[in-house]
Amino acid sequence: MLLDRINGPEDLKNLTREELSQVAQELRQEIIQVCAESGGHLASSLGAVELITALHHVFDSPRDRLLFDVGHQAYAHKILTGRRKQMPTIRKEGGLSGFTKVSESEHDAITVGHASTSLANALGMAFARDALGQNYNIVAVIGDGSLTGGMALAAINQIGYQQKRMLIILNDNEMSISENVGALNRYMRTLQIQRWFQDVEDAGKKALQAFSRPLAQMVSRAKDSARNFFDPASDNPFKAMNVRYVGPIDGHDLGQLVYVLSKIKDLEGPTMLHVVTKKGKGLEYAEKDPIKWHGAVPHDPKTGTAPASKGYSWSSAFGDAMIELAKEDPRLFVITPAMREGSGLVKYSQTHPHRYTDVGIAEDVAVTVGAGMALQGLKPVVAIYSTFLQRGFDQVLHDVAIENLPVIFAIDRGGMVGADGATHHGVFDIAYLRSIPNMSIALPKDTSEMRAMFRGALKHGGPVAIRYPRGNTDQVAEGTWPEMEWGSWEWLNPSEDVVILAGGKALEYARKAVKDLPGVGLVNARFVKPLDHNMLESIGRTARAIITVEDHQKMGGFGSAVLEFLAERGLTPKVRVLGIPDQFFDHAEVSSIHAQAGIDAQAIRTVLAELGVDVPIEI
Amino acid sequence: MLLDRINGPEDLKNLTREELSQVAQELRQEIIQVCAESGGHLASSLGAVELITALHHVFDSPRDRLLFDVGHQAYAHKILTGRRKQMPTIRKEGGLSGFTKVSESEHDAITVGHASTSLANALGMAFARDALGQNYNIVAVIGDGSLTGGMALAAINQIGYQQKRMLIILNDNEMSISENVGALNRYMRTLQIQRWFQDVEDAGKKALQAFSRPLAQMVSRAKDSARNFFDPASDNPFKAMNVRYVGPIDGHDLGQLVYVLSKIKDLEGPTMLHVVTKKGKGLEYAEKDPIKWHGAVPHDPKTGTAPASKGYSWSSAFGDAMIELAKEDPRLFVITPAMREGSGLVKYSQTHPHRYTDVGIAEDVAVTVGAGMALQGLKPVVAIYSTFLQRGFDQVLHDVAIENLPVIFAIDRGGMVGADGATHHGVFDIAYLRSIPNMSIALPKDTSEMRAMFRGALKHGGPVAIRYPRGNTDQVAEGTWPEMEWGSWEWLNPSEDVVILAGGKALEYARKAVKDLPGVGLVNARFVKPLDHNMLESIGRTARAIITVEDHQKMGGFGSAVLEFLAERGLTPKVRVLGIPDQFFDHAEVSSIHAQAGIDAQAIRTVLAELGVDVPIEI
Repeated sequence: MLLDRINGPEDLKNLTREELSQVAQELRQEIIQVCAESGGHLASSLGAVELITALHHVFDSPRDRLLFDVGHQAYAHKILTGRRKQMPTIRKEGGLSGFTKVSESEHDAITVGHASTSLANALGMAFARDALGQNYNIVAVIGDGSLTGGMALAAINQIGYQQKRMLIILNDNEMSISENVGALNRYMRTLQIQRWFQDVEDAGKKALQAFSRPLAQMVSRAKDSARNFFDPASDNPFKAMNVRYVGPIDGHDLGQLVYVLSKIKDLEGPTMLHVVTKKGKGLEYAEKDPIKWHGAVPHDPKTGTAPASKGYSWSSAFGDAMIELAKEDPRLFVITPAMREGSGLVKYSQTHPHRYTDVGIAEDVAVTVGAGMALQGLKPVVAIYSTFLQRGFDQVLHDVAIENLPVIFAIDRGGMVGADGATHHGVFDIAYLRSIPNMSIALPKDTSEMRAMFRGALKHGGPVAIRYPRGNTDQVAEGTWPEMEWGSWEWLNPSEDVVILAGGKALEYARKAVKDLPGVGLVNARFVKPLDHNMLESIGRTARAIITVEDHQKMGGFGSAVLEFLAERGLTPKVRVLGIPDQFFDHAEVSSIHAQAGIDAQAIRTVLAELGVDVPIEI
Repeated sequence: MLLDRINGPEDLKNLTREELSQVAQELRQEIIQVCAESGGHLASSLGAVELITALHHVFDSPRDRLLFDVGHQAYAHKILTGRRKQMPTIRKEGGLSGFTKVSESEHDAITVGHASTSLANALGMAFARDALGQNYNIVAVIGDGSLTGGMALAAINQIGYQQKRMLIILNDNEMSISENVGALNRYMRTLQIQRWFQDVEDAGKKALQAFSRPLAQMVSRAKDSARNFFDPASDNPFKAMNVRYVGPIDGHDLGQLVYVLSKIKDLEGPTMLHVVTKKGKGLEYAEKDPIKWHGAVPHDPKTGTAPASKGYSWSSAFGDAMIELAKEDPRLFVITPAMREGSGLVKYSQTHPHRYTDVGIAEDVAVTVGAGMALQGLKPVVAIYSTFLQRGFDQVLHDVAIENLPVIFAIDRGGMVGADGATHHGVFDIAYLRSIPNMSIALPKDTSEMRAMFRGALKHGGPVAIRYPRGNTDQVAEGTWPEMEWGSWEWLNPSEDVVILAGGKALEYARKAVKDLPGVGLVNARFVKPLDHNMLESIGRTARAIITVEDHQKMGGFGSAVLEFLAERGLTPKVRVLGIPDQFFDHAEVSSIHAQAGIDAQAIRTVLAELGVDVPIEI
């Protein structure tokens, strides 16, 4: 295999075009193999194989900086930069990250996982390069989905204004993680139909036609069209923002890619190259259903068959609850920022298409669209993963909470998420949400309680965050709507000795820890804000010691709320706060991270023993 | 005066064009008068007088929804919607808000203060209107400055995609609060030169020419130009996003405004009307220096002379420190999101133009530009007001903190800010920043300490937030660089009785509270993260009681950090946490808010007395 001889990008420099094509084919096979065995970001990585091969052939990493927006399309980049042997470890504990990560390789220019950050990073790098009198290339690869994020658009606006030398590669695969939405995306489709080409000087045209049959065909088609091939399409928003626009070109034609990249690599100022690719390219089942194969589970690489996913997810429980509640309340409206599939909303979007919208990868917009809806009489539910709601923090505070608007936040992936790692763990939400006045925060212990909470939130009248973890839960029959007093905690096992307070995922661990210990108190602390003041005051007065457990940073989390309340009431029981310590955790199984963090059943047992409870420490 | 007869927008309906012009003139005089007496957002409100008069003549508020982005340009709106008599109370305790506020008037469609939110709100309202089968107009007025915010651009992208019926009025005054930056702004200048006009049907053209002399002139000029007057300018980014574009028109010509608004008000789908206005219009000194007169202080309305501002601000202390540190360290680079003047960076931007950039009203971009700089060897200082850094929370966490990048955050306006009110108080930053691993947070007590902190932060090597309040501080001689051990607290008065822990502004109150009480301990708790573990442990072991004081929400703040630490060490002294209670505070003098919140010297005395310290409660 040619790949056996590629130990770093320098080994790509002198390859012929045929050899480069072979490298691309071998990369594709390796990616298919790795994802079949271990799962991973299959479709987007397959779509970027030729582009990444061409980039490493033309540019000089790590001196030149290659930035991959989101970073999940970069498997070929990892293989070509000395990490081929480690690929089977990807997304596993101690192994490679599923995204690019600065601390993993000098070839990874940015640490990433969230979308739309590459262009602002690139602008900062260009400032640094110029301020330090250096001279290297900066190339940011950004998908059309990531361009729906305002941060990317605002960065282009500044890049055009500053006229910093850099190359923006718009990797246009007509997809974000869900179907792409937004007018810019529609505009890009127009560009593809009008296919035109700019800034490749006349001298190059003949060579180009000889070089690449599809491009030559494109040129000849364009000659027949009314529109001048070398004129810009009208209303090009990137040109309006003073960014040179080149394209679109075929992102799977290595010849075209290498030729065009070589031609434009040293142009002054900012250039955008529009590259059209196909998610899942070269793998029939992935090309056919790129949404399904965005995040692949282990499967048969030939047929694409995978073991049926077991169990019923929290996301499905949410989606099912929405379908039922939408029937009850005609004002319910669900908003997602490009996470229809992940949030369990596929079925809802089909049953209630007029009370559902996907605003693209723009969490800030999602939150404030919710505010506008609430101001005009709807009851919006904004479904966002915990880690992505960080993007809408100010909007929750400024647009929703100040006027106490009834916007419900369905916070999926609250707590540690596992394989996606440090960029994606949802362990900050309690801290940033509970400092916001008017906000309620609830953590359901199971599907029934989740349903009661959403129903209660619709009646409550102010902003409510309902937070649940990644993974599976129990399924209940349609029409199951248990009663629950809003804001109340629940004694699962009353005691005046040691009392454990926990909600959501952490409660599972606590239950396991005390299942054969009838003397230890256990409370389902399902509301983090407001706390159940009566119950907590009573526990504060009577308990010998309190243990709080949470799948969230210790700093500013649930335990901290308990400490604040007790201090305010002048109560000073012994309190042990179990939560995520003050550090970032890399990707690993959730259970492994929880063990390391000291919040699992075993860790709770250890603390019980330290507090003098007579327990076998081993479970 | 005509205004005496205007009790609400309905009274504008039947006025003639001449009467409307007179109303606009009277509004202008009232705004000048109010701002001369009390200060306020003078320049932007003067620029929007004719636009707002025309809007209330043509549209039907509150049924039709008029959204003003940022909301500081809406003084004329307040006067025309029944709040004329209260205008002298604006921005004063118990008086009108300086922005639009839903709870203040049914005519205020959104509660606002931060930029770029109006379009997402408008989109949400349009969804609500259509889902509920209603039929009203939605009009969002947004400045060209606010359009540099990604949230606004991302919202336009979705508005064009959804094709919701609404009118976006681009109030183009060629300014944000500072000079405007960004390529879109440059593009708008091109549009103004090319002036063209679209979508006003032929039938209207003659009437238009008769009606409005400047527009007729414009039409005739355009006829002479090579470009077809009714063709779109090339590369119109709004058209690319499928938003109908009309303009630009003269935003001070009431005739033009009324005519065009009437013509386009009921068009299907989204329409953008580009209106060119002048900040400070009609007031010579404000037109000449709109940045100075953005936020006016009380002054002589004839001459624009105001008493010289007294004292030396924290912002100036920051700017001066940057000038000196930039000489020491060639890698220092300062970034502002459109707050050069407010952040004290005018002088720095002149002395170090190549190590300074303004990225526009885009805090998320500002933070990640800092990350990119740090990755490539610079030492960026991102200067952001506390309330606006809320917009960059995810970027601080995801782009800066995960890789422990050396980005310094100069957080101005930390704590209560006074007249700007609930949207602007900087009382959440400790809560959302301290939960982020790798982050350090410091609160200087004076200029010397601030300088020591910035110098220390440049050496520290990870992300550091240095937070200081609005208002004045002491001025020290150039070259003053006291030593300070990084992360250390400082005993100001050692004691084993009651010990007060406070940093920054809160320390001023604590000092005042204990100045004649030698038995009460006082600590300059200048680092909120990390805490000074040694000193706090020792205090936790020896003090009879601890009082923490902070100009920040109690929930998740400094006091909470102290409680967490003590709990972790198993220490249970009595702790009283003084901070901002869990509610939003409206505009008022900072001292008044602090008294209400219970964190001022008087409040501290009261708590000392409750803890048995023998003090006269009155100071």
